[in-house]
Order: sequence, then structure tokens, then C-alpha cells
Amino acid sequence: MQFESPLFWPAYVKEDILYVLDETLVPNKLKYIPVKNVKGAVAVIRDMKTRAFGQFLVVLNTFLLELNPKGDLLKHLQMVAHELNNSRPTFPFAEVTGIIIGVSQKASANNADIRVAVTKTVQGFLAGIRARRLQRVQEIADSMDDHDCILTHCNVSGELAMAASIALAQGKHVKFFATETRPYMQGAKLTVWELQEAKATVTLVPDNAIGSLMADKLVNKVIIGSDRSAANGDIANKIGSYQIAVLAKEFGIPLIVLTQPSKGVASGQDMPIEIRDGEEFLVFNGKKIFGPKVKGFYPGFDVVPHQLITKAIAINAGL
Amino acid sequence: MQFESPLFWPAYVKEDILYVLDETLVPNKLKYIPVKNVKGAVAVIRDMKTRAFGQFLVVLNTFLLELNPKGDLLKHLQMVAHELNNSRPTFPFAEVTGIIIGVSQKASANNADIRVAVTKTVQGFLAGIRARRLQRVQEIADSMDDHDCILTHCNVSGELAMAASIALAQGKHVKFFATETRPYMQGAKLTVWELQEAKATVTLVPDNAIGSLMADKLVNKVIIGSDRSAANGDIANKIGSYQIAVLAKEFGIPLIVLTQPSKGVASGQDMPIEIRDGEEFLVFNGKKIFGPKVKGFYPGFDVVPHQLITKAIAINAGL
Repeated sequence: MQFESPLFWPAYVKEDILYVLDETLVPNKLKYIPVKNVKGAVAVIRDMKTRAFGQFLVVLNTFLLELNPKGDLLKHLQMVAHELNNSRPTFPFAEVTGIIIGVSQKASANNADIRVAVTKTVQGFLAGIRARRLQRVQEIADSMDDHDCILTHCNVSGELAMAASIALAQGKHVKFFATETRPYMQGAKLTVWELQEAKATVTLVPDNAIGSLMADKLVNKVIIGSDRSAANGDIANKIGSYQIAVLAKEFGIPLIVLTQPSKGVASGQDMPIEIRDGEEFLVFNGKKIFGPKVKGFYPGFDVVPHQLITKAIAINAGL
Repeated sequence: MQFESPLFWPAYVKEDILYVLDETLVPNKLKYIPVKNVKGAVAVIRDMKTRAFGQFLVVLNTFLLELNPKGDLLKHLQMVAHELNNSRPTFPFAEVTGIIIGVSQKASANNADIRVAVTKTVQGFLAGIRARRLQRVQEIADSMDDHDCILTHCNVSGELAMAASIALAQGKHVKFFATETRPYMQGAKLTVWELQEAKATVTLVPDNAIGSLMADKLVNKVIIGSDRSAANGDIANKIGSYQIAVLAKEFGIPLIVLTQPSKGVASGQDMPIEIRDGEEFLVFNGKKIFGPKVKGFYPGFDVVPHQLITKAIAINAGL
């Protein structure tokens, strides 16, 4: 691997503390928030200090922090799972936590050591996913062709930038457009930085410029991630993904989506869309940017039906 | 008229000074910039202190400020026209200034008083346009139906808010969604404020939420303005208008556009699109918001072909 982005693996445990990259400070600062228990984990998830794959890492690793409670371990882990499940609606936390609870229950029933079983399961999962993600980075690079102008939206946690690094090393001339991705500006803050770190050429565009870019034939491929993906191929991703997909279809531009299909989710209809507090997007860099009477509506995600997706590059996490 | 927005008529001459509403400060402050000559007029246009219809008012009224030069009046007015024409590419300044120059040349050829001819022409134009715009406000109100949920983008200089006020007085239950309209946020800063001043219900949404709103059937009509409109019905408007039009077509939602067709512009192909400095949208409220290495691409406008427009409500300014 030529280049590994800090966003590729943004949380790790060291000496019983979970260090979580504060993605809201990137790229100005690479600061890791120390998380010591489930309460801290719920806080970093709820406050969106970490997103997407980082959330998955936080959820799994949190169980390793909670293996030594005062009372009954199994009951305690069930409480941990419950708190994680309720931290945010869009990510399928219950599927992940359910597996850990299942392993704990089985160990308990067999009089085996729950601590050992949980630790082994979490570490096995993480190793498997890391290997599979590195493989997907290669597949994304393979999907890039010489002279591609690739549009992306929001941020795909390191994989796109790492794939760009490989494609460039293969001698392919690829260029990127990143949307700002209002309201949190993940495109402007994370994706542009990551792609620049990978030595790729990237241009930031307002979210409003997508139709114009496509009409002017300035992009020929779209690659986005997904926060959630269903068995039928529908995905939920950062708000704005749906309109990009409709526009790509209109212009015959292939849409490639990185997915991690959940067997338990049949279709996009089964994905509850998180409506974030409208106040959130009226604040920028911590300051209220609009008048006090302005009311906002901010669906955090939207659903892209599988009919609009040209190619999915999936990770089957075994969920 | 129940309610007149300051954005409806944002520039006026009083005692040889042109007062131009600084729309970049609205709604926090209603401050008028005093403009004494063409140099000041070019500055307010170039710095986007005024936009759209305000620019038209500035261009016309600037001739009234420049009627007493030291040298030859006709040559001076031609210089004034030249400087105005070159202040920004998207607005059809040359068509407006060409008329004033034509009137001046005719008066000169007839040994008539150029000052009187120009003053009469400018004042006649303004009175005619004011009457026609007030009539259009009524037509926009007529196009609103009971229980409409109307999406708008950027800002249409008072007319939408004044039409909303009439529609509400007629007992129609109409509601509005305004896009933020990155990068300048005219929707968030101007449109929301104007509609609230008109006592209408309005919700701000990220530009990224348009597809989602339409898919969820939360809007049933789109009304936008146009910075420029061609003889064949194509328009140029704030970046993002094009993708809204494509999405509206996809969902069978009527798109109503306020136009002022220019006979001299055959189609959208003949409208040069202003590419603003990419640096501009990396700054927010005067502060650089992204990293120093970020490169931006910011087309200020895009073209909506007439095939995507359901209904145009035109003003024929006699150009």
C-alpha cells in the first residue's frame, strides 16, 4: 500500500483506552479523543466526531472497554449494546451489537469465559474487515480508467484516496471533483485533504454545481460510499447522494457505490432516515450563521434506489 | 399592495446620489451604499453588493449621475456604458446601455438636449418596469394554489414574497421551502427573511436536500427567477437552478420561471457563463473556511433549457 489515510482506520484501542480520530477537526488537526467507556463512545457518535466506518470501529471496540463491570458481565454488555443502538438511527448498530451479545450469551451458556469470547470475536472481525477493505481499495483503483474525471460526495473513509494513489502509481491520469457536502462540508474538509495527501488532483465544487458539471461533460464517473446498504442493492448515504444519482442517470454517467450489504435490511424502504436537528445546519464552525427566526429542515441522509446504481463494490462483513 | 420588500426596488436616486441597498448585509442591516459616479457603480456590481434586478437599476440610474462631465457628454456616456458593460459578464448590460447610448446619439444628431433625453428615457423605463413588475407579482400570486408547497432557489428580488403576501390574503394556504443557495446563501439570507416579513411559512433546506424533498412529495411546485432569459425560452440563473429543473422534470413537478426575454439572445448557447474566482466560495462571512491548498471551481450560473420550464412569467422590458 502506497498511502494510508488516517480516515481509513480512525479508531484503535491501546492500553484499555479507545482513541477516536476527531474528524470534525480534520484537516486542521489530527486529534484523537480518548474514550474510556460506553458513555464516551455514545458521545463521540452522537456528536458526529466520528462517522461512517469510524462509528463501526467505535461500536465494536467499545465492548473491549466494558469487560470488567462491577455486576453481571452479560447484563452489563446488554446495557452497553442498548446504549450504542440508541445513539443514532441510521447506522445498523443493532446488527453489530447483536453479534457480540450472541457470542456472550453462547459463552455464558457454555460456561466459557465471556471476556475471551468477546475479545476474540472483536479482534477477528477487525482483522477480517481490514483485509477486505484493503482488497476493496484495489478494486476501486481497478475501476478507475486513464483520463477519468471522477465526482465524489461526502467522504468514503480513506478508500477513495488510497485507490487514487494506486491508480496514479499505475500511470492512470485520474482527476477528481469533490462536492462541498453541506452542511458539514465533509467533502471540502476531509475528501479534498485526503486526495491531496494522496497526491491526486482534486477540485472542490459547490453542491449546486453538479448538474452543470455533468451537462458540460466535466465528469465521466461518480464514486460514492454508503452509510447503509440493503440486500436489494438500495443504499442510504449522505443527503445529496440521491440527487447526484438521478443526475448521473440523466447524463448516462456510471455511478459506483461502495456498499456493505446488511442481510437484515431488505430495501431502502426499511432504512429509517435520520432527521437531524434543523438548528445544526444553521451553525457553521460553531457560530450561528443565519437569523434567529430561520427554521431549517435537515434530513441527514437520503436513499438511492438500486436502479440508479451502475456498480456496487461490496464488503460482506459477515453480518 | 399589502407588502413591499426592500429587495423589490433596491436602488434609487435622491439629490444626485444613487443609494444602493447592500444586499450582502441583509437581513442583519438595511444599509444603502451611496454611489456618486460610474466608478462607484462598477464597484457595487463587481463586488455583488447588489444582484439581479438591483444591477439593472444601478446600470440605468448611473447615467443620471454622469450627465455633467467636463468634456464631451456623448463621448463620456459611451465611456460610462463601456465600463458598466465590462463589470460582469452574465447580466445583459450592453443591451440596456446600448439603448441609452442610442437615445443620446439621436438627441445629439437632432441638436436636442442629451441630458433631457437620457433623463426622460431612464425615468420612463423605470416607471414602466415598476408597473409591469407589480403586475407580475399579481400573476405569480395567481399561479399559487391552495395548499401549495413551493420550492425556490436563490432570490427573486421581492416578487415571490410579495406574491406570497397576496396569496395568503386571498386565503390560500401556501408554504415555502428555500434552498440555502451556496456559496452566497442568498436563499438563507434574503429569501427566508423576505418570506418571513411577508408572514409566510418558510423552511430552509440544504441544497443537497432537493431530490429528497421531491421524492418524499414535500414540494409540488418550483418558482425561480432568471438572471438572463433568451428568445427561445432558455434561461441562465444562479448555479443549482439547472439541477433543480432536471429533478423537477423527473418528478413531474411544474417549474415556473420569472423571465425578462432579451431579443438579442437567441438561446442558452449565447449566454456566457460567468466563472467566478474559485477563492470566493472558500470564504464565508469574510473568513477563509477551508485549507490553503484547496482549489475551487465556481461557475456562478447555469443554463436551464426551455424544455425543462413549465411556465414562464415574462417581463418585456422593451429591450
